Amino acid sequence: MFDAYGTLYDLGSVEQSVEAVSPGQGRLIAHVWRMKQLEYSWLTTLMNRYEDFWSMTLRSLDYTLRSLQLAASEQLRLDIAATYLDLAPYDDAVVCLDSLVPHRRAILSNGTRSMLSALAANSRLDRYLDHILSVDAVRAFKPAPQAYEIVEQALAIERSDVVFVSSNGFDICGAKSFGFTVVRVARTDTSVPVPRVAPNSIDERLLYGLIRGNAEMLDHTADFTIASLADIPSLFYDHGNNR
Amino acid sequence: MFDAYGTLYDLGSVEQSVEAVSPGQGRLIAHVWRMKQLEYSWLTTLMNRYEDFWSMTLRSLDYTLRSLQLAASEQLRLDIAATYLDLAPYDDAVVCLDSLVPHRRAILSNGTRSMLSALAANSRLDRYLDHILSVDAVRAFKPAPQAYEIVEQALAIERSDVVFVSSNGFDICGAKSFGFTVVRVARTDTSVPVPRVAPNSIDERLLYGLIRGNAEMLDHTADFTIASLADIPSLFYDHGNNR
Repeated sequence: MFDAYGTLYDLGSVEQSVEAVSPGQGRLIAHVWRMKQLEYSWLTTLMNRYEDFWSMTLRSLDYTLRSLQLAASEQLRLDIAATYLDLAPYDDAVVCLDSLVPHRRAILSNGTRSMLSALAANSRLDRYLDHILSVDAVRAFKPAPQAYEIVEQALAIERSDVVFVSSNGFDICGAKSFGFTVVRVARTDTSVPVPRVAPNSIDERLLYGLIRGNAEMLDHTADFTIASLADIPSLFYDHGNNR
Repeated sequence: MFDAYGTLYDLGSVEQSVEAVSPGQGRLIAHVWRMKQLEYSWLTTLMNRYEDFWSMTLRSLDYTLRSLQLAASEQLRLDIAATYLDLAPYDDAVVCLDSLVPHRRAILSNGTRSMLSALAANSRLDRYLDHILSVDAVRAFKPAPQAYEIVEQALAIERSDVVFVSSNGFDICGAKSFGFTVVRVARTDTSVPVPRVAPNSIDERLLYGLIRGNAEMLDHTADFTIASLADIPSLFYDHGNNR
């Protein structure tokens, strides 16, 4: 069971797409946007005011643009959000998914059904996926336990038989807390010190990683941490779990 | 009803206290820490894994230090977290609280009872407060509705009769969604463009404000926005609501 955004799919192209709003600021916009998009998913779930992830994506984009004192036309705003429908998979995603046959392979994502269907079709990862599950079915975002319960129902499987893979700290905690076996793929290189390009400033390339790129200091940590999805099969074979 | 951290109390002194870990990095540490402290309060509530705000404060400090590749002794870590027990009130806090007699004045905060008791005593704001309420009583952090329900029970008051004051976007949304009349105090000056000190970098003084300082683009917006708590009495008189 794989998370989509940031795990199978690289969000790097979002930076290019938001460049259209303000050339030279794409990276900053993209980082703030992603932070706020997830923040909004948590806040609305906590307030019992769920709206789907497409709405979260647009609302957080609106926040980001206003925060940076930028403006975009309604059409540009929708075009930018549509980047989420056509992301490139990481290089290791196909290798990993292809190698996992005969295991069932699936996505569990915050995205809506239509967002995920478009994404899987556009990237042609749909050929490798047996199930594409959206938390929209239960109207609660990860890491709420309801979001993970979908897997048991949709696949008729016990949580203890699920291996869940994510690069997102909150998702790793939530999945482990729920009872899955969890693999963390470390997409952010956190081994290099944060460079100082000028006094009292930080490199905007580090913004998201600094706040979200490290494993969380909550309980419920990953069972395995890997640098690439291509390492997943070896976890199974080495541990004799190739059922 | 007032929020405490960032609304009545200035978190500026946190920057000085974390300077002890890494001179010159206090501001960056403080900003990442505050972002993560609230993030952890939301995630643990969503996961049904509540731990109190003292625990959130320490866990988020640990995350921040590791993310910035810094280390602190156990004693320094506790000393730094203790900054939350002795914060300075904003200048407008006493003016406002003093002017609101004969209305009942209270705090509703994520902080634990002992954190808030120490804070109110150290700052001598306890003289102006009729009630100090902690969400710890219901084991859920703001903006979960249970956190605001405490007010109705503790004060034997209807939610429609409560005026809630906060500078925190998520808290403003949560309180309004719950049914309070909400006043937003705009503590972050968001009228100036984000300065670029160097290419691909952002001024770390803007980090928290950029991501959390603006009003949220969710529904449930404040009924009033003011620049200073000293403006609160005029809201009542001008609108004939001086009950």
